[in-house]
Amino acid sequence: MYTYKYLRDFTKKLFLVIGCSENDAATVANVLLKSELRGISSHGLLRIADYYNLWKQGRINTNPNIVIVHETPSTAVVDGDSALGMIAAKKSMEIAIEKAKAVGTGWVSVRNSNHFGIAGYYSMMALEHDMIGIAMTNANPLVAPTFSIDRLLGTNPIAVAVPADKQPPFVADFATTPIARGKLDIMHKKGKKAPLGYVQDKDGNACDDPNILTQGGAILPLGGDYEHGSHKGYCLGSVVDILSAVLSGAGYGPWVPPSVAYLPVKNNPDVKGTGHFFGAMRIDAFRPAAEFKEMMDKWILTFRNSKPAEGQEKVLIPGDPERELEVVKMKEGIDVMPVVVEKLNEIAEELGVERI
Amino acid sequence: MYTYKYLRDFTKKLFLVIGCSENDAATVANVLLKSELRGISSHGLLRIADYYNLWKQGRINTNPNIVIVHETPSTAVVDGDSALGMIAAKKSMEIAIEKAKAVGTGWVSVRNSNHFGIAGYYSMMALEHDMIGIAMTNANPLVAPTFSIDRLLGTNPIAVAVPADKQPPFVADFATTPIARGKLDIMHKKGKKAPLGYVQDKDGNACDDPNILTQGGAILPLGGDYEHGSHKGYCLGSVVDILSAVLSGAGYGPWVPPSVAYLPVKNNPDVKGTGHFFGAMRIDAFRPAAEFKEMMDKWILTFRNSKPAEGQEKVLIPGDPERELEVVKMKEGIDVMPVVVEKLNEIAEELGVERI
Repeated sequence: MYTYKYLRDFTKKLFLVIGCSENDAATVANVLLKSELRGISSHGLLRIADYYNLWKQGRINTNPNIVIVHETPSTAVVDGDSALGMIAAKKSMEIAIEKAKAVGTGWVSVRNSNHFGIAGYYSMMALEHDMIGIAMTNANPLVAPTFSIDRLLGTNPIAVAVPADKQPPFVADFATTPIARGKLDIMHKKGKKAPLGYVQDKDGNACDDPNILTQGGAILPLGGDYEHGSHKGYCLGSVVDILSAVLSGAGYGPWVPPSVAYLPVKNNPDVKGTGHFFGAMRIDAFRPAAEFKEMMDKWILTFRNSKPAEGQEKVLIPGDPERELEVVKMKEGIDVMPVVVEKLNEIAEELGVERI
Repeated sequence: MYTYKYLRDFTKKLFLVIGCSENDAATVANVLLKSELRGISSHGLLRIADYYNLWKQGRINTNPNIVIVHETPSTAVVDGDSALGMIAAKKSMEIAIEKAKAVGTGWVSVRNSNHFGIAGYYSMMALEHDMIGIAMTNANPLVAPTFSIDRLLGTNPIAVAVPADKQPPFVADFATTPIARGKLDIMHKKGKKAPLGYVQDKDGNACDDPNILTQGGAILPLGGDYEHGSHKGYCLGSVVDILSAVLSGAGYGPWVPPSVAYLPVKNNPDVKGTGHFFGAMRIDAFRPAAEFKEMMDKWILTFRNSKPAEGQEKVLIPGDPERELEVVKMKEGIDVMPVVVEKLNEIAEELGVERI
C-alpha cells in the first residue's frame, strides 16, 4: 500500500524527467492517480509503461504547442501536437467550458493527441462550473464491428458528468464494449479467464482467453452478439470515433495510433494521432441551475432508493462506487499490483528516479 | 400490401379529423410512414392506437402553442404544450438547426411533449444542412436499472445522423436496451418467445415472455446483466432521461406519462409531459464540410469492406438495412399486420374515415 501523495509525487517525477513542464507533469500525475483512487487501476499507473514506450519511440511530445486550428462561438478543433493525451484533453475541455460560458455550450474535437487516461476526469471538470461535462475518445483498434472479424474500433469510452445539489454528482464513465481493454489485461495478469461475451478469436469464434487480443482476437461491442444488441454498441463506438476523429482529422477506426506493443503502427498521411471529443453545457443555458440541481437530487434519490432485486444489496447511481472508493483509498492507501510496481521500478531506474 | 401514398393519406386523414392542422397531420403521417418504410413497424402505424387513446383521454393537444421558454445562442428549452410528439420534435429540431447556423451548434431540450415516433427522423433533418443531427427521448417507464426491479427508465433511444459525400449517410438509431418495447409487442402479437436477456419478471428473474411488461416485468438495459455491462446501458438510458427531462422540466424516470394502457398515469405537479433532446452540429464549424465528407466516405468504406465473420454475408453501416428497405417498400408496398389493420379500421370507423 502506498499513499496517494507518495505515488503522485513519484509519477510526477517520472514525467518531469522525460521533459514535461511542472504543470503538465502534475496534470498527468493527477489524472493517473485519480484513476487509482477511483478503483480504475486499468487506467492508472499500469499505463505509464505504455506512455513511456511511446515517448522512447518519439511519438510523445513533452513540450507541445497545443493550438486551436478552427473555431466558432460554440466549437473548436484543437491540434494536440503529439502531447500526452492528458495535456491535450485538459486544455481542450477548458476551451469547451469557456465557450459554454459565452454561448451556452462548447464542443471541441481534438486530433494529434494520445491516450488520455479516464474520460471521467475531463467530464468532471465541468461540474464546478454548474455545467454538464462530456468526454470521449477513440482508442487502440481492437473491437470488431458486429458480423466482422476485423478490428476497426477502440473501446471508445463515453463520460458524462451532471451536477446535483445536496447529492453527489452523477458521473457515468464507460467503455462502449462489455469490458475495457485494460481490465482484460488485469484478468490476464491475474491468470483469470474472461466470461464469454467479452472477446472473440481471430476467426470470430466465442472465446474466454483475456489475452486473445495479442493473437488477432477482438473485443465485442456492448451487447455482445447481434441478438442482444451488439449493433447498438457498434453504433455507439462508431459515433465516438466519428466525433473524435472524422470531425478533427485524427486517426479514425483502424488508423488510431496503437499504444500497445502487439499492434503495428500503420502509416496514413491523411490523419493525425488519437482523437477526442469534449462537450460542456451550461445548466443555466437551459433552466436556472438551482431548479435543475434540486430536480437532479430527486432523480438521484428516486433511483438510489428503488427496490433491489433479490440478492442485491442496493441500486447504484453512476459514480457511486468510484466516489466511495476514492474516500477509502485516500485514507487507507492505494494497492499496486506487484507486476506493475516492478515495471514502474524498471522505468524509474532508467530515468534515474528513486524506486517505489 | 398497401402503397406508401395510400397509407400516408389514410394516416393524415385520421389526424386531420382529430383536429390537427394540414401541416401537422402531414408531419405525423410522414414520420409514421417513414418508420414503416424503414422496416421499423414497431414505431409505425401500430402506434396510432396509442396516440388516439391519449387524444380521447384529453392528453394530446392537436392545436398546440409550442414555445421557447428559455434560450441562449446555442441552447433552448421548448414547451410542447401537450402536442403530438412529432410536432414538438420537428419544431425543436428546426430550432437546433437554426442555432447551429448561427453559432456552430444548437441544443434543445423539450418538455410537455408526447411519444415522437422514430428518433432517426429528427436526426436526419440535419443532413441536408451538412450538419450532424442528434435526437433522443425518454419513454414509458418499463426498464429496470441494473440490480433493481423497479421500472424507472424508458427504452430511451438515441439517434445520430452523419452526412457523407458519395456514400449514403451514417444513421444510427437505437434503443438503449437490447430490444425496443414495440418489438416485444410484435413478438407477443406473433405468439413468439423473447430470447433470454431482454426482460426480467417482476421479481427480477430471467424470463422469455415478451408480454411480461403487462405483469410487472421490466426490460433490461443494453448489456443484459451486470457482468456483460448492463450498468453501461443503464448509464446511457439515464443520460438520455436527464438531458430530455431534468434539463427541460419534463417527466423524468418513473414520471414519464405512459402511452400504454397497462401503466398507471401518475401525477407529479413538478414535471410536464414527455421529454426529448435534440442537437445539431454544423460540420464546417469544425472543418470544411467537403473534407469531412470525403473522410466520412473513407470511414464508411473501411467498415463496409471489412471482413465478415464466417457465416455472415457482409458488415453493415448503421442505416444500411433501413435505407435498403425504404427503396424496396416504396416500390413494392408496405405490409401491415392484420391485427394492426383491424385496430386502424376500428379507429377509422369511430372517426368517420374510410377503412383501409
